[in-house]
Amino acid sequence: MAFKSKIKTIEWVENVSRMIDQTILPKEFKTVDIATTEGMYKAIKDMIVRGAPAIGIAGAHGLALSAIELSKSVKNKEEFLNKLSEKAEYLKSSRPTAVNLMWAVDKQMKLTQETQGSIEEITQALIQNGIKLENEDIEINKKMGDYGAEVVPKGATILTHCNAGALATVGYGTALGVIRSAFAKDPTIKVFADETRPRQQGARLTTWELTQDGIPTTLITDGMCSYFMSKGMIDMVVVGADRIAANGDTANKIGTYTVAIAAKYHKVPFYIAAPLSTIDISIKSGEEIPIEERNHEEVTHINGDWICAQEVNIINPGFDVTPNELITGIITEKGILKPNFTDSIKEVFKGR
Amino acid sequence: MAFKSKIKTIEWVENVSRMIDQTILPKEFKTVDIATTEGMYKAIKDMIVRGAPAIGIAGAHGLALSAIELSKSVKNKEEFLNKLSEKAEYLKSSRPTAVNLMWAVDKQMKLTQETQGSIEEITQALIQNGIKLENEDIEINKKMGDYGAEVVPKGATILTHCNAGALATVGYGTALGVIRSAFAKDPTIKVFADETRPRQQGARLTTWELTQDGIPTTLITDGMCSYFMSKGMIDMVVVGADRIAANGDTANKIGTYTVAIAAKYHKVPFYIAAPLSTIDISIKSGEEIPIEERNHEEVTHINGDWICAQEVNIINPGFDVTPNELITGIITEKGILKPNFTDSIKEVFKGR
Repeated sequence: MAFKSKIKTIEWVENVSRMIDQTILPKEFKTVDIATTEGMYKAIKDMIVRGAPAIGIAGAHGLALSAIELSKSVKNKEEFLNKLSEKAEYLKSSRPTAVNLMWAVDKQMKLTQETQGSIEEITQALIQNGIKLENEDIEINKKMGDYGAEVVPKGATILTHCNAGALATVGYGTALGVIRSAFAKDPTIKVFADETRPRQQGARLTTWELTQDGIPTTLITDGMCSYFMSKGMIDMVVVGADRIAANGDTANKIGTYTVAIAAKYHKVPFYIAAPLSTIDISIKSGEEIPIEERNHEEVTHINGDWICAQEVNIINPGFDVTPNELITGIITEKGILKPNFTDSIKEVFKGR
Repeated sequence: MAFKSKIKTIEWVENVSRMIDQTILPKEFKTVDIATTEGMYKAIKDMIVRGAPAIGIAGAHGLALSAIELSKSVKNKEEFLNKLSEKAEYLKSSRPTAVNLMWAVDKQMKLTQETQGSIEEITQALIQNGIKLENEDIEINKKMGDYGAEVVPKGATILTHCNAGALATVGYGTALGVIRSAFAKDPTIKVFADETRPRQQGARLTTWELTQDGIPTTLITDGMCSYFMSKGMIDMVVVGADRIAANGDTANKIGTYTVAIAAKYHKVPFYIAAPLSTIDISIKSGEEIPIEERNHEEVTHINGDWICAQEVNIINPGFDVTPNELITGIITEKGILKPNFTDSIKEVFKGR
């Protein structure tokens, strides 16, 4: 049963990619129109748009924008395709960890090779495919939501980390999509949202989008999860993913791994919710996933103010890898994958 | 080998208790003079002074201030002692979790019963005993530091949570006292400091006092500990304590328990550093330790700004309890207590 969310995070509107500016939420709600490749690179890098599936759509839109740009000056098709390929690499370099970005941009590039037509026809095909991926993302999320809702116990309190919500996708959510679908069936469920330092996506985005949709949400700081688990106040954990290896090891926002260890210690089920496009079967284990090192001000400053002594050292990994042994199941649009993940992932990718 | 720290957190100076205002660090360094019982209650409650051992000294100073106040208006000794007893209860109610506060105030009250003398003599005895406890705190910390330094591996990186430092004591520290003593022996050791949301004592206080003393410090957010442990970048954990039960279960700043679980998962030694006055042998286990619920703005606001949607629910426990099974050893001024803690604690308290 799908829940009706009010949020549309990214949308193709008359030759621009319109997106909610997530850097100013929850203080201010504003959309921005991205009209160039450069603008899209910056929007992804500066996290105006973020969340693995939404970044994927942003990449697909980005390449459509590149084609529109190039079609104005380049008249030779081969040159057009070469330059488009450069733009694709540029867009893919904006964030290294989320695989959906590579997946969506590569999907667009493949389309340009398959399309037998003029520059104009290729450009139109990229635009239409961007819109198609956008719509598919919502459909995929709703399917995941349905599968995920089946494992949510009646009246459960669900802990989530970071924002794997409508704001991380086109408009429904992966982990929060599961929560939306569960809430549609059972309005007694509740959510605990980790703040998710350094960038506080849990505080800034998850509490905003869930309370917008009327779902009861308690904000906790990242260190508190074990306390509430020990009191029996958390029944399950559901988080998103930025990249999943062929053995189920899962890269997600920094801090996820700590929550997974706490869940294991307290025997609380720990689920990943992610579309199949997040699974990178080309890598065997989490060790091969590149971890983005982000800028130090994310740790040392909040709202522009220093929060610590200025002489400190900083290491700011944007993600961590949760090993498969801590994961109860991976909720996808094709059902819930269970351990042994190497086998269940191989099975679901059979024939793809 | 004791390290020379520059910090004096709380000090009795000419009939006032002079303390570093910890609410404005690291932006501003300022001391405030507390001259009344009411002022001391507020200083403890608002965390101008914080950290279990420092709160103990503040309580002892507080009762000396109460005696000075009362001695100006009350001339009957019995009435003086009754009113002093009321002030003692009032001071003890300022923060419920740290047992050192109860310990120090009760020690002062016991002294008033033992002192055979005038109101003036009792008042002087309370002042002198406050100064004595102050000096003893530093001596105790240095002894703990010496014992603790023995279990710090050469060149170790030590993770700590919250601030159990000079700023949490009179001037040397419990967990950070161990680090100071280890650093005096081996200047290649390094510290990772957890930010410690919600109040960020790790970011605001620990990074400040360690970098003041020239000890290399890396600030990390609370969710990151597992990531660095999995990379082999953390060799041990040392934290302070607010109250330790007779079985070794330890209440400390919220988030400590999560770090302890992560340490266990990665087989990283996890030590508590606390004076014997933090051990409450009257309670059998951590379940009996009262957990202070603090105000919600600590979670929803940073530097006065909202960080989340305004419709969220908040639960803000100030402390959590780390069960004894996760603790490698408890570093005290009488040596390092090892499991089984019920026995080692009984042994060290024998004859006390």
